[in-house]
Amino acid sequence: MEALKGRDLLSLADLSAEEVLFLLDLAAQLKAGKIKPNCPKILGLLFSKASTRTRVSFSAAMYHMGGQVLDLNSSVTQVGRGEPVEDTARVLDRYLDVVAIRTFEQTEVETFANYANIPVINALTDLEHPCQILADLQTVFEEFKQFSGLTLTYLGDGNNIAHSLLLGCALVGLNIRVATPVPYQPLPEIVAKAKKIAGDRTQVDIMTDPKEAVRGTHILYTDVWASMGQESSADDRVPIFMPYQINTELLSLADPAAIVLHCLPAYREKEITHKVMEGSASRIWDQAENRLHSQKALLAAVLGAG
Amino acid sequence: MEALKGRDLLSLADLSAEEVLFLLDLAAQLKAGKIKPNCPKILGLLFSKASTRTRVSFSAAMYHMGGQVLDLNSSVTQVGRGEPVEDTARVLDRYLDVVAIRTFEQTEVETFANYANIPVINALTDLEHPCQILADLQTVFEEFKQFSGLTLTYLGDGNNIAHSLLLGCALVGLNIRVATPVPYQPLPEIVAKAKKIAGDRTQVDIMTDPKEAVRGTHILYTDVWASMGQESSADDRVPIFMPYQINTELLSLADPAAIVLHCLPAYREKEITHKVMEGSASRIWDQAENRLHSQKALLAAVLGAG
Amino acid sequence: MEALKGRDLLSLADLSAEEVLFLLDLAAQLKAGKIKPNCPKILGLLFSKASTRTRVSFSAAMYHMGGQVLDLNSSVTQVGRGEPVEDTARVLDRYLDVVAIRTFEQTEVETFANYANIPVINALTDLEHPCQILADLQTVFEEFKQFSGLTLTYLGDGNNIAHSLLLGCALVGLNIRVATPVPYQPLPEIVAKAKKIAGDRTQVDIMTDPKEAVRGTHILYTDVWASMGQESSADDRVPIFMPYQINTELLSLADPAAIVLHCLPAYREKEITHKVMEGSASRIWDQAENRLHSQKALLAAVLGAG
Repeated sequence: MEALKGRDLLSLADLSAEEVLFLLDLAAQLKAGKIKPNCPKILGLLFSKASTRTRVSFSAAMYHMGGQVLDLNSSVTQVGRGEPVEDTARVLDRYLDVVAIRTFEQTEVETFANYANIPVINALTDLEHPCQILADLQTVFEEFKQFSGLTLTYLGDGNNIAHSLLLGCALVGLNIRVATPVPYQPLPEIVAKAKKIAGDRTQVDIMTDPKEAVRGTHILYTDVWASMGQESSADDRVPIFMPYQINTELLSLADPAAIVLHCLPAYREKEITHKVMEGSASRIWDQAENRLHSQKALLAAVLGAG
Repeated sequence: MEALKGRDLLSLADLSAEEVLFLLDLAAQLKAGKIKPNCPKILGLLFSKASTRTRVSFSAAMYHMGGQVLDLNSSVTQVGRGEPVEDTARVLDRYLDVVAIRTFEQTEVETFANYANIPVINALTDLEHPCQILADLQTVFEEFKQFSGLTLTYLGDGNNIAHSLLLGCALVGLNIRVATPVPYQPLPEIVAKAKKIAGDRTQVDIMTDPKEAVRGTHILYTDVWASMGQESSADDRVPIFMPYQINTELLSLADPAAIVLHCLPAYREKEITHKVMEGSASRIWDQAENRLHSQKALLAAVLGAG
Repeated sequence: MEALKGRDLLSLADLSAEEVLFLLDLAAQLKAGKIKPNCPKILGLLFSKASTRTRVSFSAAMYHMGGQVLDLNSSVTQVGRGEPVEDTARVLDRYLDVVAIRTFEQTEVETFANYANIPVINALTDLEHPCQILADLQTVFEEFKQFSGLTLTYLGDGNNIAHSLLLGCALVGLNIRVATPVPYQPLPEIVAKAKKIAGDRTQVDIMTDPKEAVRGTHILYTDVWASMGQESSADDRVPIFMPYQINTELLSLADPAAIVLHCLPAYREKEITHKVMEGSASRIWDQAENRLHSQKALLAAVLGAG
């Protein structure tokens, strides 16, 4: 899709519904081995936070296409010495073909994108995690062969995953329910944006009761209760979030064919039980694998190799 | 050798004598440039300890075959955030083609291998260091063109190197003497396993007297007296281990054609003198180079490119 | 140029004038895409200090030529455990094709080069930064299409950049003025060497008055006032160095067509003002880009792919 060439992906809302569906279709073809793009370009990874899946899946995606990856964690770059992101962006723009950034502030990836001509990909900020949600949607579509008429329920912390899920589900027409304790609801502006995208066609519901939220749902999804940088409050959060744990009881309220997703890493007996994680409804390992395929699709598209 | 395709190497005892000899022959052919395998696969390096030789030699081996390497030290992955190895293994299995792990507990590489379908290579644990010993055996064979009738003497700490040497020498039919202070002897279960492999054909001797151990030997081998993680006790160990130092005097008791090996890094005037290390009997730099060739052989074999 | 094959670059003075001009011409051709060397070799980066530009530009240079890069920062290698550089050099020599070292002492790169047969490139020491100056000279030549009759003024700290500029300008016949506070002048032995290279043909002036130094000059150049490792004295240095700040006023004393260079990272309102950095005289981003092309030229030449 020519329209994606050279584009940034800072928020899922940067994409149209048509573009998301194009990327999901491309990801499925890549996974099936039907196409093998050649893309001898260089991806830079600018990660200020720990990462396993994102780092490895982005790297493997480039390597499979004949490309290269430069891992620029902040401990080895001058960014750690206080160089303004505007300067780093303009310099890296001269050396690299695409960059994926994992950081705290959404404004940092936005500033980087303003100063770099190359495509900039949000590889997780405190606000969004669009690449994860592309893999999630690929996993849902693999299972159900459709989005229409289905409901995804996200349980837990109204974090970056909740935000990008709200936007992504709205874009593809998958009904979404986000159930969180009241103080941990997703940001109102993201919810409003998702509702605007969804229109009348798709339901977007912000809820507090986990049982009500999972009743008849087709996909249950959760994430850690304390994201990177919030570990100090993790213990305090346990009693507040425990009713939102995905366990056998909660799962039994969902549609009999319901599947369970988790973006990992998972804390067993916290946001999800060991039994559910290893149970027959879990699609967690396929979901992890799909990071590879969906990001390869994204990279191929923005680099014009798709 | 088709039988090695897809296999793990967690302990040298995972290999048969025939398989070790096959790998040594393949390593020699690779070193001579007689074969140049093409293997555009991805190796993951999961290293929880410092490494120069292992990291670089594994990487160069993959690069020479057209492959790629992903360096996943624990500071940049979620493993450092406490993700269970079972989960990391299942995720990386979806992205990578082979993985080499350097860690403390042998059980960690075993658990990883249980949960990953891809080949898993022990790149050093507290128990074993099989890749080092493949390079050592290649170096011995280069020098003497045989193993039969020769003796290798390992002096110093009964550590992972001692363990893998016991197993490796027993497999190829090289007599082995391990001389250590009494409290630092190799684990009895490893010694028993080596003796079982050796049978009547090959001698396996655990000794305490360094002079007796080197008398007439063909290969003298030592390692640091305090391995990674034991640095705090290094000073206390010096007087205990000093009689096991490889120096001119001890070397003079060996066979006149004897060679000296050390797996590096070396502490001069501790386990080996500067004079011996730089002397004519030293094959230490060739031994280091052979890490490249023997690991390339191993990678090619387990990836089916050999 | 066959004469560069296999050579080290520890100091700019290791090169003849003819060799520098050859590399600059090669860099220009590489930048223009006129030649695309194939060089499937492995570069090792041994960096004991932070680096963005050097790390990324060296890596991109190798990747563009089909080569590979091994990033060996000291935290992951045994060098950090106290292994002598002589041993590390001899081992890496067996695995790699070329190495670039960023460290403190010039003697460390010299020792490494003495013990390794492969080409060794100084990627910044406390004494010199030859690769930066190749990019600077490329940038000057792009702008003015000549060196003869032009003057470059370096303002600020008489550091490694000042040293390599002195040698580089002397080699290509670009007049150079270095203006620093008295206690921060470049080393007399480097100045003497530059004057010897320059002969009667080219002027080499060590000055203290910044206004006098920039009068009529064609290139203004500055660097941070406190280099890596000197950060603790940074505040004390501000009043001493402030008269050497490149600002609109100082720039107005230069030739009307003068350009401004900075090797980055820059501290705005310290050694250079935001206004000048973002102004029309700035060639700072082109200068950064030229690291890629000039280092690719250097790598191609020493690896025999040029």
